[in-house]
Amino acid sequence: MESSNVSMVGREPHFLNGATRICAIVGDPIDQAGSPERFNRRYQKLGVNAVLIPLHVAPEDLTAVVKSLRAVRNFQGLVITVPHKQQALRLLDHCTPRAKRIGAVNAIRFTQGRLYGDNFDGEGFARGLAASGCLVRGKRVMIIGAGGAGHAIADAIAEHGAGSIGVHDWDRHRAEHLVANLRSGWPGFDAEPVDNDPAGFDVVINASPAGGNVDHAFPTDPARIGAGAHVADILLKPRITAFLTACEAKGLGVMPGYLMLDNQIEAIAEFFDASPAEMAGS
Amino acid sequence: MESSNVSMVGREPHFLNGATRICAIVGDPIDQAGSPERFNRRYQKLGVNAVLIPLHVAPEDLTAVVKSLRAVRNFQGLVITVPHKQQALRLLDHCTPRAKRIGAVNAIRFTQGRLYGDNFDGEGFARGLAASGCLVRGKRVMIIGAGGAGHAIADAIAEHGAGSIGVHDWDRHRAEHLVANLRSGWPGFDAEPVDNDPAGFDVVINASPAGGNVDHAFPTDPARIGAGAHVADILLKPRITAFLTACEAKGLGVMPGYLMLDNQIEAIAEFFDASPAEMAGS
Repeated sequence: MESSNVSMVGREPHFLNGATRICAIVGDPIDQAGSPERFNRRYQKLGVNAVLIPLHVAPEDLTAVVKSLRAVRNFQGLVITVPHKQQALRLLDHCTPRAKRIGAVNAIRFTQGRLYGDNFDGEGFARGLAASGCLVRGKRVMIIGAGGAGHAIADAIAEHGAGSIGVHDWDRHRAEHLVANLRSGWPGFDAEPVDNDPAGFDVVINASPAGGNVDHAFPTDPARIGAGAHVADILLKPRITAFLTACEAKGLGVMPGYLMLDNQIEAIAEFFDASPAEMAGS
Repeated sequence: MESSNVSMVGREPHFLNGATRICAIVGDPIDQAGSPERFNRRYQKLGVNAVLIPLHVAPEDLTAVVKSLRAVRNFQGLVITVPHKQQALRLLDHCTPRAKRIGAVNAIRFTQGRLYGDNFDGEGFARGLAASGCLVRGKRVMIIGAGGAGHAIADAIAEHGAGSIGVHDWDRHRAEHLVANLRSGWPGFDAEPVDNDPAGFDVVINASPAGGNVDHAFPTDPARIGAGAHVADILLKPRITAFLTACEAKGLGVMPGYLMLDNQIEAIAEFFDASPAEMAGS
């Protein structure tokens, strides 16, 4: 077990001294963030002298806080969460093509006072989906929820070779906007807004807040999901949502939301550690 | 033992999640700071969901960084170390009389965006001295080194009822400045600049960088220190300085520098936790 006494004792010597490099996650609110526990577990396990702390910052203060963090010489990287992912894009010196396509960043590396941004939400989702036993190559994918998470996931699913993507949102304009954005980033890709009917899709992804518990309406009707389909949910609480429980009861394969987060920790930590030369080539 | 497996496991649940309050120590350099280990050991021992991190900030960036930390809503307090203690005084909304007398702060509490400053260096020293078996009331005290630490120590020693203070510095103007400052804060107090001769003093305090190891000249000649005197050193490395080792060999009572730091952790942590009402009364 990772939490055994032996490994705990092993963590002690390198934990937080004057030479520790600082990373943070910034959001509003921040109490619910799972990144501090995940990153610090990784740092301690690997014996890396770094720590990731939560910073509660309101939108109107984000620019000033990020700007001043440039001046903190042992500050290494910032994970960006709701509602700052779009605003943070405008604070960068450099960002990756996928962050530009999505229009949002969720990680910023601080290198000699310069800010490099990327977005690992979609990649974390795709890796989590693979870890749950589903590869998207050639598949017909339905994404429910055309917000920031839906955008990042759609982009990564397209990049990983999905056959087509149908986007549903209760606000059809949002779905149309996501589809237009996706086609612009991936010319010729088969994407369209769809009604809320999962029949005929190989992969159904809930990227909306619906279905966290049984009191809320499900994002879509599990009874309409085809046999053999794979169902993913990005919600973190509960760990297995009521929607996924209903899908599992039907015998469908499922991917719980924590796999999306777990699978981007390593990628973000490596991004934070990248050398300036590696960054210049990104 | 504090580091037993049982207590380690006990620390896990409250360590660093999204709800953790953030404290920091700011300095330039910062690698050598002992506060992160000390504060975090305390927080973990008491089950307090707070953490103290090191921030490496250059003097020209201090104002902007402190100003922007006001906007971090889970930010609780800042420990100030060299070379920022004087500059930080100018960034406060409120500071204690002793911080004003000393002309420096070493701790700032953030309360609803307002900054409250205090200086615990002298108080930490006086408590450490007492813990090492020496009370200064009525004693003739010699302080070697008239820098920031010397100022804070002289003020606290006067407040704790020392009979007199002689201040030595290789730069006599600095010693004269400290003495003038001390007399201004404590009218009628018996203080004067002195030569580097510890004979006749009951307590001899090294507040200078001299004597850390045998390669450097001692701050004063141990052979000239009277029998029964108590000798203190504020240097943190080595844990027992060559100067203190020489004094111990003479049979003198000694106070190592870490006691100054250890004895202000609790006071600063309580200051960070104080309610706005308590602050208003300070």
